[in-house]
Amino acid sequence: MSRRLLSENSLLAKIARGVRSPSAGKIPRATAGVASRLALGLGDDAALFRPSRDCETILTCDWFLQGTHFLPDKHPADSVGWKCLARAVSDIAAMGGTPRCFLLSLALPDSSTGSWLDAFLRGLRRAEKHFDCMLAGGDTTRRHEILINVTVIGEVPAGRALRRDGAQAGDLLYVSGVLGEAERGLRLLRARKKTMSRDSHSRSPKDPRLQKHLYPEPRLALGELLGKRRIATAAMDLSDGLSSDLPRLCAASGVGARIDAAKLPVPAISLGTRAARHHAKRAHGEDALLLALHGGDDYELLFTVPKRKELQVPPSFLGVPLTAIGEITATRKILLVGTGPQASALKPGGWDPFR
Amino acid sequence: MSRRLLSENSLLAKIARGVRSPSAGKIPRATAGVASRLALGLGDDAALFRPSRDCETILTCDWFLQGTHFLPDKHPADSVGWKCLARAVSDIAAMGGTPRCFLLSLALPDSSTGSWLDAFLRGLRRAEKHFDCMLAGGDTTRRHEILINVTVIGEVPAGRALRRDGAQAGDLLYVSGVLGEAERGLRLLRARKKTMSRDSHSRSPKDPRLQKHLYPEPRLALGELLGKRRIATAAMDLSDGLSSDLPRLCAASGVGARIDAAKLPVPAISLGTRAARHHAKRAHGEDALLLALHGGDDYELLFTVPKRKELQVPPSFLGVPLTAIGEITATRKILLVGTGPQASALKPGGWDPFR
Repeated sequence: MSRRLLSENSLLAKIARGVRSPSAGKIPRATAGVASRLALGLGDDAALFRPSRDCETILTCDWFLQGTHFLPDKHPADSVGWKCLARAVSDIAAMGGTPRCFLLSLALPDSSTGSWLDAFLRGLRRAEKHFDCMLAGGDTTRRHEILINVTVIGEVPAGRALRRDGAQAGDLLYVSGVLGEAERGLRLLRARKKTMSRDSHSRSPKDPRLQKHLYPEPRLALGELLGKRRIATAAMDLSDGLSSDLPRLCAASGVGARIDAAKLPVPAISLGTRAARHHAKRAHGEDALLLALHGGDDYELLFTVPKRKELQVPPSFLGVPLTAIGEITATRKILLVGTGPQASALKPGGWDPFR
Repeated sequence: MSRRLLSENSLLAKIARGVRSPSAGKIPRATAGVASRLALGLGDDAALFRPSRDCETILTCDWFLQGTHFLPDKHPADSVGWKCLARAVSDIAAMGGTPRCFLLSLALPDSSTGSWLDAFLRGLRRAEKHFDCMLAGGDTTRRHEILINVTVIGEVPAGRALRRDGAQAGDLLYVSGVLGEAERGLRLLRARKKTMSRDSHSRSPKDPRLQKHLYPEPRLALGELLGKRRIATAAMDLSDGLSSDLPRLCAASGVGARIDAAKLPVPAISLGTRAARHHAKRAHGEDALLLALHGGDDYELLFTVPKRKELQVPPSFLGVPLTAIGEITATRKILLVGTGPQASALKPGGWDPFR
């Protein structure tokens, strides 16, 4: 890897070239789409954003730190670029909103300002285009480790945001997609003996089981559907794992929940040879349930729907399954049924950096 | 210092108690001031902000990192709390805007979640009140070092933002306040043998020469005056030092500048005994000029004014001197006059984390 020393000005210029953004100091007049909302992008003291009439502005930020959220020798740099934006955009999806622009705070060692940064910016640019969410500004500094913080600005029609505090006893509890796939991908990645080579910053691993961990897909269209049509009474995204996140939704709404283990959309089983199938099936079945209950990083939506609106929830939306996994209860307990003769309390077992 | 282990939920609750914010999950109906703009604060996936009609939204973020931007054994925790918000608010002042709310990303070692965090939150709360800028959300995680990132959201009437790219040849170049005082304060602080005791997280040093370094005061009222009355053609805040920041304003505007060393508002001289005065005066005079040219962290405003509007700039505003230090030129050079028989090129000598 070439080792380049960049001044802060040069680094900013490289980032500005690497991603879409209104040129420093220029108002992009008569440009279409998101760019027309950015009155001023990189290159001034701050960015200027023109809010839409009758919309509320959604504000969210997320850490993405070397060692805590990614491992430079395991995670390709373009996955780091994609995922740092995707995670923050997922909070916009959870509010039923549309992402508009983002701020990137980046702290880098000198040794990462060459090919690592190039690959990082490629992943970020792909995410930027995919989410139609443009780089508006940020801050850079030198550091012995790679530190990333992303702020995303989104919009939602006033009064239509999906919140955590609207769930009512009797509502059905849904999740999108399959739970636990990202955690399984992380385990596969950790178990790999060979670390990523220095030239493979941008080569994404071919193994499809790693895709959800490396390149998560926030459920933006689903969030918009649930909010605009007033289908959901409450929603949040699953970032730390169902067992950690569901109590937060319930606490905000002042309710409890009962989950049916048999209904959870768990990762698909790949059992290998027929001979090993019996034992593997049993072991994997339990493992898949634990992954779905406690695995983090899925960025699926967890949402509640009144029973009278059950038919408004399709079995899948844009290819993503929507599954009723239980019900909201008046008693403030989080219970799991279907794993034994009696319901058991579901304890938070997901990601908590402070545990 | 008591050592407490907090879960992420508990840490969020502590932060929410420590600063003003709409209660988690509640819309503050019929509340006055900034709070009424926050439809949703801490406790959901993201914050909701109601933008003002006919205003543009200003977006800015800033790193504030242990070891890079502050030293835990030298800087009181309440200064860290004040300054991490003040620095980002200064970018809002530089745009001629009004701060509205902010997001706090905080990564902490377990050992800092006790008295250090208490004092940090006291400083942050003072800044929050002083700038009328409310905590709207954020992200927390555990880390071996203290990492802070602050995003500030501000507003400015559409089309009235102060930008860097409007300076014209012939404009007068002004600065607010005195330049170099913060850098001198940092040097005094570094030179102190005794490190801050663990109990002194919140006791601010009495030495007035340290105030500007520890508790900078963004020039919000001045920025608003310059923008609303259309006095300034360009503006920015001085965070890295005049010699590093002025070239950025000039590059954005496609101009150069000539600064008169004799006009620079340098730190006041405290010369001690009469006997030592002659030598000290000479040495200090040079030092004061270098501090004013290259010292960072002042958070004063640098702005340009057409000559015909010279009389609209008062000699001081709300107790802060406003000084014409030179002129914008058509040739794209940054020149310093008054230090020798000829004008010399002013080289960037301020703060650059990548140099």
